[in-house]
Amino acid sequence: MYQLYIANKLYSSWSLRPWLLLKQLAIPFTEQLVPFGEGATQPHFLQFSPTGKVPCLHDAERTIWDSLAITEYLAERHTGVWPQDDDARAWARCAAAEMHSGFFALRQQCGMHCGVLIEMAQIDAALQRDLDRVAALWQEGLSRFGGPFLAGARFSAVDAFFAPVAIRVRAYQLPLPTPAAEYAQRLLNLPAMQQWLNEALAEPWLEPSHETEILAAGRLVQDLRQP
Amino acid sequence: MYQLYIANKLYSSWSLRPWLLLKQLAIPFTEQLVPFGEGATQPHFLQFSPTGKVPCLHDAERTIWDSLAITEYLAERHTGVWPQDDDARAWARCAAAEMHSGFFALRQQCGMHCGVLIEMAQIDAALQRDLDRVAALWQEGLSRFGGPFLAGARFSAVDAFFAPVAIRVRAYQLPLPTPAAEYAQRLLNLPAMQQWLNEALAEPWLEPSHETEILAAGRLVQDLRQP
Ligand SMILES: N[C@@H](CCC(=O)N[C@@H](CS)C(=O)NCC(=O)O)C(=O)O
Ligand SMILES: N[C@@H](CCC(=O)N[C@@H](CS)C(=O)NCC(=O)O)C(=O)O
Repeated sequence: MYQLYIANKLYSSWSLRPWLLLKQLAIPFTEQLVPFGEGATQPHFLQFSPTGKVPCLHDAERTIWDSLAITEYLAERHTGVWPQDDDARAWARCAAAEMHSGFFALRQQCGMHCGVLIEMAQIDAALQRDLDRVAALWQEGLSRFGGPFLAGARFSAVDAFFAPVAIRVRAYQLPLPTPAAEYAQRLLNLPAMQQWLNEALAEPWLEPSHETEILAAGRLVQDLRQP
Repeated sequence: MYQLYIANKLYSSWSLRPWLLLKQLAIPFTEQLVPFGEGATQPHFLQFSPTGKVPCLHDAERTIWDSLAITEYLAERHTGVWPQDDDARAWARCAAAEMHSGFFALRQQCGMHCGVLIEMAQIDAALQRDLDRVAALWQEGLSRFGGPFLAGARFSAVDAFFAPVAIRVRAYQLPLPTPAAEYAQRLLNLPAMQQWLNEALAEPWLEPSHETEILAAGRLVQDLRQP
């Protein structure tokens, strides 16, 4: 049985990616949630992950760190991780790799948070460039492969890679053109995403630096943890 | 025939990765070198790459952007991109993905440059952490899979992903423990790396921001372009 090490569902965007992929493909795994400690690094993660980062997958004696390496590891062992079609699969891998190594303004300015709605103070040029690229990429995938998912009719790893963006769009009310906004909503509506979001809201831990970070982005409109 | 779009060999670390992989595996391709223009972004790259970044591979009608997506695309079509052995392949993908998404201090403070030797003004804590991790990762791979390459007896994509680090080690005279330093030298000695380095030195273009950046790191000891 796979063991997937993740951190707080409320905050951990990289953890969400392989977790959602495993859930959507109905691949059995044991979830090992280890909460963030305070501070910039997480030395206690080194007990199960050689980089001190999550996600980290354990498969018997093997340790697979990094979300994209986990994805390729699963792709060798299960169908449906990437699309069957050659064009769609090549495109999906490009888009996932672009997410894995980029979108820094979006990642830095809009830290993932499942528990709040924020009104952004401003959208600067770098963030707008990232949003424009997200919209262009999503619309390209949806129109080229026919939707409703990014690379065609079935959910695949590229959707998992952009799932945290859908949560950011909701949390910061980020403006996107209609097809892209609808796709973000589709991701949020997936039962497995609803499960992640609900479990995030039920978590007992607040990590101060994550909580402060989001308030730097704008005004708190609603705290979903206090209904 | 593949067409590989790259930028200046003197500076472009991401270009080197798939270029070296194709050369080492003797996969035929046409090199399309498009020099950097001045400035922070490269709008003229948008003519062949949807992100405006290099490397970008064209395979007939298909466009594959991003070094790691290019690697997986090639892995589906050619043997030897990743190691045969399951353990070595899983490890190699993790290490390459870690490079693809990390080592920011090393990448930012020690921009790749094939034409100079620099004496670093100082090695700060973030850079030292990256160097320690490079050394630990390399030594793990070399001892676990027996060398002389990172994931065993044959050059594979994980070596290509760390090749720019070997150039940085040389350019900035970065301290590494013996097995790691020897591995960096082995990479530099590969005939394809020698070809890249020689072609870099012969380039007619100087790009001001890349040239200024490296001088911010320390004192110029030698300019290999002026023998
Ligand atoms: N490239 C990694 C990124 C992983 C990552 O940055 N994870 C964060 C949590 S979302 C983490 O573990 N941070 C703790 C730390 O950096 O000390 C991946 O794709 O898995
Ligand atoms: N994640 C990309 C990174 C590519 C990248 O940053 N390339 C640089 C040159 S080494 C570039 O094209 N920069 C131009 C720009 O950012 O406008 C990959 O792995 O291919």
